[in-house]
Amino acid sequence: MVDILRYLQEQKALVDEALARYLPGEEHYPPAIFQAMRYSVFAGGKRVRPILAIAAAEALGGTAADVLPLACALECIHTYSLIHDDLPALDDDDYRRGRLTNHKVFGDANAILAGDALLTFAFELMGDARHWPRFAPERVVQVMHEVAYAIGTFGMIGGQVVDLQMEGQDIDLPALQYIHAHKTGALIRTCVRSGAILGGGSPAAVEALTHYGTHIGLAFQIMDDILDVRGDEQLMGKALRKDDARRKATYPRLVGLAESELQAQAAVTASIAALDIIGERGAVLRDLAHFIIARES
Amino acid sequence: MVDILRYLQEQKALVDEALARYLPGEEHYPPAIFQAMRYSVFAGGKRVRPILAIAAAEALGGTAADVLPLACALECIHTYSLIHDDLPALDDDDYRRGRLTNHKVFGDANAILAGDALLTFAFELMGDARHWPRFAPERVVQVMHEVAYAIGTFGMIGGQVVDLQMEGQDIDLPALQYIHAHKTGALIRTCVRSGAILGGGSPAAVEALTHYGTHIGLAFQIMDDILDVRGDEQLMGKALRKDDARRKATYPRLVGLAESELQAQAAVTASIAALDIIGERGAVLRDLAHFIIARES
Repeated sequence: MVDILRYLQEQKALVDEALARYLPGEEHYPPAIFQAMRYSVFAGGKRVRPILAIAAAEALGGTAADVLPLACALECIHTYSLIHDDLPALDDDDYRRGRLTNHKVFGDANAILAGDALLTFAFELMGDARHWPRFAPERVVQVMHEVAYAIGTFGMIGGQVVDLQMEGQDIDLPALQYIHAHKTGALIRTCVRSGAILGGGSPAAVEALTHYGTHIGLAFQIMDDILDVRGDEQLMGKALRKDDARRKATYPRLVGLAESELQAQAAVTASIAALDIIGERGAVLRDLAHFIIARES
Repeated sequence: MVDILRYLQEQKALVDEALARYLPGEEHYPPAIFQAMRYSVFAGGKRVRPILAIAAAEALGGTAADVLPLACALECIHTYSLIHDDLPALDDDDYRRGRLTNHKVFGDANAILAGDALLTFAFELMGDARHWPRFAPERVVQVMHEVAYAIGTFGMIGGQVVDLQMEGQDIDLPALQYIHAHKTGALIRTCVRSGAILGGGSPAAVEALTHYGTHIGLAFQIMDDILDVRGDEQLMGKALRKDDARRKATYPRLVGLAESELQAQAAVTASIAALDIIGERGAVLRDLAHFIIARES
């Protein structure tokens, strides 16, 4: 695991530096909104999503530098979704990654607007022609369109709506799978896929990486569920076993811890199998898949 | 005013029909989010923003059919901003256009998500290549980028943040002008400008229409302030004089009703002057400008 940990560290530094550069600073007016946006963007995220976009692009011949605007846009979208999820009207969480959530620091109104602003900024960043000297504009439009679809009502937002509706109810595995595939899976899948498209992959390679993204998204979410049960509260930086307290459906609740671990492993295996057609170029993505179920936070 | 009223009616029908077609229906899963989105999109809006986009495109040689996806995306963005503005954490409004606001019907969580979904859907719609057979993809990317900028922290969201910060405080005219130019002006300006870009205007014509959009946005907002004071509560379909009750800054509060009317008229005159270089092609936009200060709701 040494190499992949180093890769993650290096790419995270790249993403952090780029986010700091792209996101307007607090010297702009009105400072409150830039403070609120930056507070959550720089709250210690692991940058898994942007790193997946970069790794997918690199696997198909692109460079990290080329897809950094896309990678940062995807992290802004992830951050917006966390800020809105944490709101009192939704999950009502006070802590995230060991720090007070956005609305606890800036108030509900600013948190709503900071989320809106990060979502909006993601499209501003993706659409900025200055960032795309090497891409055909039709590929940029395609990526913007696919990202919007993935995080909309048939993707991330759909999953969030169903998750809220199901809270406190007994749900079955298909319903839980719908929630996972949409609420977290759709964004992770689109990270991999959009990186692959801008990386310059052939249609077959893009399809292969899309399958990888689907399975890796599921593995990631099952592991999140597992870590919520057995994880170390300090490492996770948030209140654990909260899902259980709320009777929120998770894999361990529905199929048990041991079966959850088997299914996470099966998803990782499936994700790696999908990489077959790109051969050695899939090495980093394979290691990332293994890392996802080995992680402890 | 007969012709322009007919034009508005016809374009509104076109926009309504297209919105009904583009927006996914309640037969999709999960129905709650599509219900909430459609509730506010079909709440009797006048479609001023999409009609401005269409009129701008037509003035420069485009057709309404070509820019309908853009026009509908802009109306979705407007609707998202209203849903989030009305939330208890922000303006806390119970009624809008004579109907209960989104969160009063669907709850705060669904209203937040419906707003998010409409914002996201706007970019999905703008980025959908099936809608753009006649446009160069670089123009589509440019428009998506410009729209995102206009409704972000340096535009609409910035205005909303300052508006909230200033509530209950004594503010001066420059601060009020900042709020108006950003909270409502930026979106109206980008409606005109993006319609002009896709309509195929020369750079000089696009610039001229951009100036028109800036002035018309100001005129529109001053009229909104004026109507809030002297308007008919039934025609407006919302609680009036609420701005005054909250000590929210408005033109009439700061400069008086008579001076506000003069400034609205001056903005209309400036908007019309900006159309000089396009000559007779500006006829509809001129009539729209006159309509904006003649309207009663």
